[in-house]
Amino acid sequence: MTEPIHLPADRYFDPDPAQKEIALQLYQQVADKPLVCPHGHVDPRLFSDPDYDFGSPADLLLIPDHYIFRMLYSQGIALESLGVPRRDGGAVESDHRKIWQTFADNFYLFRGTPTGMWLTHELHDVFGVRQKLNSQNAQAIYDQIADCLTKPEFRPRRLFERFNISVLATTDAAHDQLEHHQAIKASGWQGRIVPTFRPDGVVNIDRPDWQENLQALGETCGYEITSYKTLIAALESRRAYFKSMGATATDHAALTPFTCELSDAEAEAIFARALAGIATEDDATRFTGHLLIQNARMSTEDGLVMQFHPGSYRNHNSVVFEKFGFDKGCDIPVPSEFTRNLKALLDKFGSDPRLTLILFTLDETTYARELAPLAGHYPALKLGPPWWFHDSLNGMRRYRDQVMETAGVYNTAGFNDDTRAFPSIPARHDLARRVDANWIASLVVRGIVDLNDAEAMIHDTAYRLAQRAYKFA
Amino acid sequence: MTEPIHLPADRYFDPDPAQKEIALQLYQQVADKPLVCPHGHVDPRLFSDPDYDFGSPADLLLIPDHYIFRMLYSQGIALESLGVPRRDGGAVESDHRKIWQTFADNFYLFRGTPTGMWLTHELHDVFGVRQKLNSQNAQAIYDQIADCLTKPEFRPRRLFERFNISVLATTDAAHDQLEHHQAIKASGWQGRIVPTFRPDGVVNIDRPDWQENLQALGETCGYEITSYKTLIAALESRRAYFKSMGATATDHAALTPFTCELSDAEAEAIFARALAGIATEDDATRFTGHLLIQNARMSTEDGLVMQFHPGSYRNHNSVVFEKFGFDKGCDIPVPSEFTRNLKALLDKFGSDPRLTLILFTLDETTYARELAPLAGHYPALKLGPPWWFHDSLNGMRRYRDQVMETAGVYNTAGFNDDTRAFPSIPARHDLARRVDANWIASLVVRGIVDLNDAEAMIHDTAYRLAQRAYKFA
Amino acid sequence: MTEPIHLPADRYFDPDPAQKEIALQLYQQVADKPLVCPHGHVDPRLFSDPDYDFGSPADLLLIPDHYIFRMLYSQGIALESLGVPRRDGGAVESDHRKIWQTFADNFYLFRGTPTGMWLTHELHDVFGVRQKLNSQNAQAIYDQIADCLTKPEFRPRRLFERFNISVLATTDAAHDQLEHHQAIKASGWQGRIVPTFRPDGVVNIDRPDWQENLQALGETCGYEITSYKTLIAALESRRAYFKSMGATATDHAALTPFTCELSDAEAEAIFARALAGIATEDDATRFTGHLLIQNARMSTEDGLVMQFHPGSYRNHNSVVFEKFGFDKGCDIPVPSEFTRNLKALLDKFGSDPRLTLILFTLDETTYARELAPLAGHYPALKLGPPWWFHDSLNGMRRYRDQVMETAGVYNTAGFNDDTRAFPSIPARHDLARRVDANWIASLVVRGIVDLNDAEAMIHDTAYRLAQRAYKFA
Repeated sequence: MTEPIHLPADRYFDPDPAQKEIALQLYQQVADKPLVCPHGHVDPRLFSDPDYDFGSPADLLLIPDHYIFRMLYSQGIALESLGVPRRDGGAVESDHRKIWQTFADNFYLFRGTPTGMWLTHELHDVFGVRQKLNSQNAQAIYDQIADCLTKPEFRPRRLFERFNISVLATTDAAHDQLEHHQAIKASGWQGRIVPTFRPDGVVNIDRPDWQENLQALGETCGYEITSYKTLIAALESRRAYFKSMGATATDHAALTPFTCELSDAEAEAIFARALAGIATEDDATRFTGHLLIQNARMSTEDGLVMQFHPGSYRNHNSVVFEKFGFDKGCDIPVPSEFTRNLKALLDKFGSDPRLTLILFTLDETTYARELAPLAGHYPALKLGPPWWFHDSLNGMRRYRDQVMETAGVYNTAGFNDDTRAFPSIPARHDLARRVDANWIASLVVRGIVDLNDAEAMIHDTAYRLAQRAYKFA
Repeated sequence: MTEPIHLPADRYFDPDPAQKEIALQLYQQVADKPLVCPHGHVDPRLFSDPDYDFGSPADLLLIPDHYIFRMLYSQGIALESLGVPRRDGGAVESDHRKIWQTFADNFYLFRGTPTGMWLTHELHDVFGVRQKLNSQNAQAIYDQIADCLTKPEFRPRRLFERFNISVLATTDAAHDQLEHHQAIKASGWQGRIVPTFRPDGVVNIDRPDWQENLQALGETCGYEITSYKTLIAALESRRAYFKSMGATATDHAALTPFTCELSDAEAEAIFARALAGIATEDDATRFTGHLLIQNARMSTEDGLVMQFHPGSYRNHNSVVFEKFGFDKGCDIPVPSEFTRNLKALLDKFGSDPRLTLILFTLDETTYARELAPLAGHYPALKLGPPWWFHDSLNGMRRYRDQVMETAGVYNTAGFNDDTRAFPSIPARHDLARRVDANWIASLVVRGIVDLNDAEAMIHDTAYRLAQRAYKFA
Repeated sequence: MTEPIHLPADRYFDPDPAQKEIALQLYQQVADKPLVCPHGHVDPRLFSDPDYDFGSPADLLLIPDHYIFRMLYSQGIALESLGVPRRDGGAVESDHRKIWQTFADNFYLFRGTPTGMWLTHELHDVFGVRQKLNSQNAQAIYDQIADCLTKPEFRPRRLFERFNISVLATTDAAHDQLEHHQAIKASGWQGRIVPTFRPDGVVNIDRPDWQENLQALGETCGYEITSYKTLIAALESRRAYFKSMGATATDHAALTPFTCELSDAEAEAIFARALAGIATEDDATRFTGHLLIQNARMSTEDGLVMQFHPGSYRNHNSVVFEKFGFDKGCDIPVPSEFTRNLKALLDKFGSDPRLTLILFTLDETTYARELAPLAGHYPALKLGPPWWFHDSLNGMRRYRDQVMETAGVYNTAGFNDDTRAFPSIPARHDLARRVDANWIASLVVRGIVDLNDAEAMIHDTAYRLAQRAYKFA
């Protein structure tokens, strides 16, 4: 069976002809604008080595992508058979053509999913595939991609330029020396790759790898982190270094958005208990909550934009975690509460013009109830785009529906792709720009905004809001 | 006033002409396919007696239907005046024409409700009514239905065949001897009516009727249930019997989705306290949570599909409960949490290929936040269709909107009608098939799936997903 | 730049031509019907003084409107620069032309917001503005409004008549003598302005101003309120007085919807602790919960309709609260739970035909999960319209989507504008009537209701439901 790949020019727009026409017109104004990528997980080594090799099509597109293998796993396909490496080094499928075939045989599972939409776009636009992937043509398409990957124009730097990315932020641990960022700078290549300071590893004392991370941070700093006070000093010095390397932002994760302020003595006592391995769950919650306020304080001083991503229950499936480790598609959201939890931080810095705090959530119920009212009041707050599971056609629509009327467009932070799958970046921005165009067109056909406003808004949502919120402009 | 009954051929589809045309085309491919009914509350005695008589139109359509009488009650109409029997046997309205007239006088209350839509379809298609029900024509329509009900073609078995039902699952208590299912088998009639094993009565120790149910189970088993150990043995033997009678599934309800594993000693201790009438609320929660894991374990052994329906606060109105008893339209949903609550069960059996666990919820906030991510990862999990209050045009749309992108269509379990109102079954399936067709058409007109995929999907959602999830195929 | 103000005749309707035509037709049937305003915060002194002067355009439209200044504040514009008075009497901007200019310079922030829609309508229809507000024309439009405000036809009573308001309810504290309502009556003017009894100040013992309010109530009553028993007596006598002044309703706010019944002794003990300044948080919650039941009891006796508005965390930003006081755009919603919390009240009075309890929420997750099932069962319950942040185009759509199928239209209480911005009233009702017309048209084009039903429904939603729920008819 041969079917053409399905990627109509007016895709993702609502069907009403009047709205579609306006949406298309708005979309075309920004379709080719540079991509602003202020938050993501692309590995900087892709750009430090000018000859970086992506490996096989499975190496590039399947094995590292938990969006893809979690869906296959959910239908009973073992992660081993998809080549996902085991922590114990045990055998997993090493025939990448076989892995690709399994994926192609089950590609129907992605019908109507964002992964399916991104991948279809990516196969078509990046690799020139023209047939819909299926069991019969799987190996031919594998060959086509593999052939592309041998060519110089498929080196990451060349793709970065072809994708028209104006800036790409990576995410990096507090102890990271940023050697790859240094190498990129040193190479003279002009692509703007900036680090993001993410100190979760040394801040969340309940992580199994906390002591390890602390030691790594100490080694980077040149002194041992033996107290809360030295931790604060280390964070401040690392932030300064990240900033000197081009960072404009930090990023923070926690199970809940709880914030609270501790006295130095309390903070030292918890730190001591954590070092001794006797900290309680409550200690961890309070320490993280306090460090969030400390990081907000640092942001008012050094100007780094603060991002906060609470609400993911990591490694929910202990069977998978034990065998395969972190980031294996089994992080599951929990309900979040922002109004009470953020109050301590906001009372202190929410009205401080020096702070930008960008909030993300996996709990959509907080959009209209808590986040939009908060962002529509506090000068420091902006709302990040729909995150993770909600970074989808419907998820984006729900966000615009529930956030914009109360928060206002100008208290949102534009789009970010949040991806580790580098070649999917154009597909993700394209989808977001189409959703924006369709949303703004829906306001036009309802007489809510006029065409002049609409034209301003599409440029704002497509790249200007992100540029401003992350201080790239 | 005479108005024609309003039931346009393209009803329930979105108004955009392009989408409507595709929706209609998809709908027509499955409109006449057999109805798969894997979960419901139809009384099996309808089919054990070939001459079963439905009684009056009020007996059939109003008195047992809490969807209908709770709406009338909400507007101040006494349940007594609707013929709903009192627990104390006190007098209630016995003139069924009068009950019908009250209903017709207030039929406008059902504008825009699923009950209104189902009933309109049912009156038209099952009973040939052609006028919209109102105060003036109420008695004439009563006559028309009553006349139908005297005819042989309105016996349940004949309707079952006319409705083109391929399989109908009933819901039956653990102690049930399944005499009616035996009688159906013995009669030689070919209609496939299968039982479902629902052990709530003996598992939820906080029920007022728990000891009663335990005794009934003991009588059925031939030994007294005096310990946790004998309860487990009894459940295992009853499951085997149900399976021998055609059951493919079990069903479980609880106020919350909490699961936890107890030691045998703890379980025995709680059972003993429950027998002594001194179990605490916490005991009840933990015992139910443990029994859920035990039933999952049994499912991995006997292959019965496990259904779980948490989140309903039963008998919320104590005034109504005291006078009229269970199932009187005053069960009200409470918020549910699945991520943490299901972890104990999922760690143990979520990755076990032998388990199918179909989850239902009354808390739609869990669709995108918890259930879709869980179902999109765990091999054992499937999501059941929108349940109860959400089994409606908008409820189904919200479900598709919030579930499908993350879970994927193929981690859902298709439709079930969950009804005790037998003649409403075709109306319910028809509405669901129309909603599916409209949803898939909305993907087509947005360029998300092509027509080939759409045609596969409509057959999946209309009956194949249910067939597979419940192991009927 | 000169642009015409954008206010198309078919605004806010969905774009499908068939639906739009029906929506317009339905809208036109009620566009000119009198406005029923059963709940709001307009100051009654506007009507007691026939020559009441609104002051400057900034006095009328900006300085008192927290919908407007919170959005400007969220973008870093100081409240002082907007003329918002400080508690300490410190200097704030007094040049109203400058305040207006700041607003006009930032009017783009209101794109797509309800405030933007209302204000556009108001400028156009009330003040005859024909240009879209911007930095260039700001002063000219200021002049135009200021000119209007000098004219007799812009006195509140004349606007009340021009707006075609049939009744307007104010909101008044328990101790209020209702002098302005008396003056209106005495003046012979025929406009129907009725008070609403709101006893929060003396019922919520955790308010900082509780003792003050108690004293004021005592002064009004002519005896000191020294016990729970005297408080109850005072409330009963004030309710009777309000009723004699035309009130048909009471209004109640609380952080949560918790209700519980206390013995007289418990209530007295808590009251004594509150008087002594040693009441706990739990005391406050229980006392408020008990007083809600007491007020419901009083409603069954005096027939006043009971409104309940739980779920707002007041004065969230302590920086703003300390400087500017109450109602400064920093009240933020919290999650609410109704099923368990209201049970005590509903068991007692939920089935009582003498009670009408109208519920509001800021937590939309409760619409489909709790409120619609509760309202679709309990005779005493009606659901109020979408409140505050949700009183918007999308918020209203979500409400109709999630409430109507389960509760039924006839268990809702129609629209209210809930505003202190008197000249925005026509804009708010117009938007609501358009949303209703569009919603009902969406049912017609989907074949869910026929045109006869639709025509009845638009009159119900536009004014009849509110009239009946609040006993104005």
